[in-house]
Amino acid sequence: MTEPQRTVSLPHPTGANLAALRTRYEQELFERVLPFWLTHSLDRQHGGYYNCLDRTGAIYDRTKHVWLQGRQVWMLSKLYRTVEQRPEWLAAATLGGEFLRQHARSPDGRVYFALNETGQPVTMQRKMYAACFYVLAMAEYARAADKPAYLTEAQTMLAKVWHWAFYPEELGRVALPGEVPMQNLAVPMILLNLFEEVSDGNYLAYSAEIDECIQRLLRHVHRATKTVYENVGTDGPNLTGSTGRLLNPGHAIEGGWFLQHWAQRLQRTDLSATAIDMVRWSYQRGWDAQHGGILYFLDAQGHCPTQLEWNMKLWWPHCEAMYAHLLNYSLTRNLADWQSFLQVESYAFSHFSDPAYGEWYGYLDRAGNVTHTFKGGPYKGCFHVPRALWLCWRLLGQITPE
Amino acid sequence: MTEPQRTVSLPHPTGANLAALRTRYEQELFERVLPFWLTHSLDRQHGGYYNCLDRTGAIYDRTKHVWLQGRQVWMLSKLYRTVEQRPEWLAAATLGGEFLRQHARSPDGRVYFALNETGQPVTMQRKMYAACFYVLAMAEYARAADKPAYLTEAQTMLAKVWHWAFYPEELGRVALPGEVPMQNLAVPMILLNLFEEVSDGNYLAYSAEIDECIQRLLRHVHRATKTVYENVGTDGPNLTGSTGRLLNPGHAIEGGWFLQHWAQRLQRTDLSATAIDMVRWSYQRGWDAQHGGILYFLDAQGHCPTQLEWNMKLWWPHCEAMYAHLLNYSLTRNLADWQSFLQVESYAFSHFSDPAYGEWYGYLDRAGNVTHTFKGGPYKGCFHVPRALWLCWRLLGQITPE
Repeated sequence: MTEPQRTVSLPHPTGANLAALRTRYEQELFERVLPFWLTHSLDRQHGGYYNCLDRTGAIYDRTKHVWLQGRQVWMLSKLYRTVEQRPEWLAAATLGGEFLRQHARSPDGRVYFALNETGQPVTMQRKMYAACFYVLAMAEYARAADKPAYLTEAQTMLAKVWHWAFYPEELGRVALPGEVPMQNLAVPMILLNLFEEVSDGNYLAYSAEIDECIQRLLRHVHRATKTVYENVGTDGPNLTGSTGRLLNPGHAIEGGWFLQHWAQRLQRTDLSATAIDMVRWSYQRGWDAQHGGILYFLDAQGHCPTQLEWNMKLWWPHCEAMYAHLLNYSLTRNLADWQSFLQVESYAFSHFSDPAYGEWYGYLDRAGNVTHTFKGGPYKGCFHVPRALWLCWRLLGQITPE
Repeated sequence: MTEPQRTVSLPHPTGANLAALRTRYEQELFERVLPFWLTHSLDRQHGGYYNCLDRTGAIYDRTKHVWLQGRQVWMLSKLYRTVEQRPEWLAAATLGGEFLRQHARSPDGRVYFALNETGQPVTMQRKMYAACFYVLAMAEYARAADKPAYLTEAQTMLAKVWHWAFYPEELGRVALPGEVPMQNLAVPMILLNLFEEVSDGNYLAYSAEIDECIQRLLRHVHRATKTVYENVGTDGPNLTGSTGRLLNPGHAIEGGWFLQHWAQRLQRTDLSATAIDMVRWSYQRGWDAQHGGILYFLDAQGHCPTQLEWNMKLWWPHCEAMYAHLLNYSLTRNLADWQSFLQVESYAFSHFSDPAYGEWYGYLDRAGNVTHTFKGGPYKGCFHVPRALWLCWRLLGQITPE
């Protein structure tokens, strides 16, 4: 693995430092983030959640986006199962879990992208991700609610997702002669996450699939240039053009900790080292030396990305980086990892957190000004913020001071 | 029609003012914009144009996006036919026209969204717009090159586009029970433009269709609130949620001058007044009082738009507003329209134009800083800048001083 190159002068955290930080995460999660969603998102009339909520929590659109419905079910179920069995968490998870199971699947077995308030389908994408978050929801809710049928549902849908990952044309996108075979980092990443969540530690039945995903994820890692590519060809980062050069540092950082979880579970020190590097390299490349924060997209060769949002600072890469650096530090005890954790969590809390109304803002311009005031939207819900706070809070309780 | 409310103190332009402005547009178009594309975009080996060009004109991606291929063929053909019969313009138009005719159509008669360098298809969208720009290209190239078969091709494809406009599910997007019937402003707008271009003044064969498009476009205009909605239901702006409240001021301004062209041709003073209002209302709403420039998206009720680029300043709304205000002034002789023209053209020339390398930048942040340095990309090519410069240049030669 590569040593970070920044000069480090701060000391290791003391027990008191760790305890104070843990309190901060606990308060943010349970007093300011989770209450926002529990107070404002639940649709007790039709089921499911309103996920388009403005700064204060008021509903500005009644569309129910399946990614966010599934993620919220997962988050609430996870907290119920691993933190505390609060009945209101399970009730809220049930509201979304039953709504999804009733409305999210199309007659042909795919999963819709968006539903209306009452659950009628509005949009179907030619992608597998809605189905992925459906799996996440079903698996965790099954355990929280002790309803094995939901786990079976998750396993059945996971088998379809696995199939679609290799035959995406079955989702309706016809392969064309000029297309170059390509893999987006999201595919092996989300599959690794789904196997982790569905198996809940009993992963032996999925060993071959997990190995395949790890190999596929490693295709994105280019050691010689310390680069994690967002899109690669069948033999690695050999694609030309903007698509082939695209970097999504936050995504690569998230992929790093997904891989690290498997490295720990499989006791693979080689994978652990790569996972540590994925986080460090992508953070160093993505961190905006001028304004702070993680840039959303970059081009590996320094061209201008074509994505209009490339220089914005989005909440979720910062959430991922917080946990990924803390996980690195817990494993390496390298002070540079600790410093990176402090750097990104300081930026995140000072720029995204909104103590006045709870939850975090999602979108800043390059200079760090809030550009979008809503707390929930078509791609932001009860997920990245509470997941990162929960993961960091849990890990801060496990790190022993030097 | 509504009188603009700004205080106006400047005088009407003199003949010398108009002549000086016209020279500016002429030089910008023929010395700095057109040469950029003629020098850098032509692919004489495979045909077609490289449309992904960086600030200097260097190719950063070899994908050939059909929208931009078609628009460049149209622009070059139009200049050849209406400005000067320069052989290099026709040769360049031929390069794209033949490439498109050979490669852009799929076996089932649809038009691809993107081709690779040699013309093999890469992407097919479930939308009709690639076909629209194919029509634009074929119609104008047919006249420039005096090849009637290309006009027949345009007419045949226009008939398909007309069908798809009403039966979009035939492009592969299945209608779902929760979808609310919706019309995007782009649909009647682009159809009006296509009928204008394909008919070239002989529009009687399309009279019924043109009337239908005008009625459909007027659905977006809400006089009581002086609002032009981007998306409306079957009876007007009655949609709920973010989609129903979305405003795209640049698009509404462009729709205004498309409508004005038909109002003039049909000698409909009622339509002319509405077209003038569409431009004025949308400009007043979209103009950023704080930083200058036209905001990309707004929400009619003041909610935060969910589009990540909502507060950016894009080149094309400014191009459209330049011509639309000048057209308004040429018809109204209202000094507020002249002032709006001067305001937006001053912003555009000072922020987007790049005298060092030619063409205009496409994307600025809210404060007006260039965020994307490329001159051509997946949605920006040889079209909005030269079209606006050409239209303004032509009109500046027709306005007689007060």
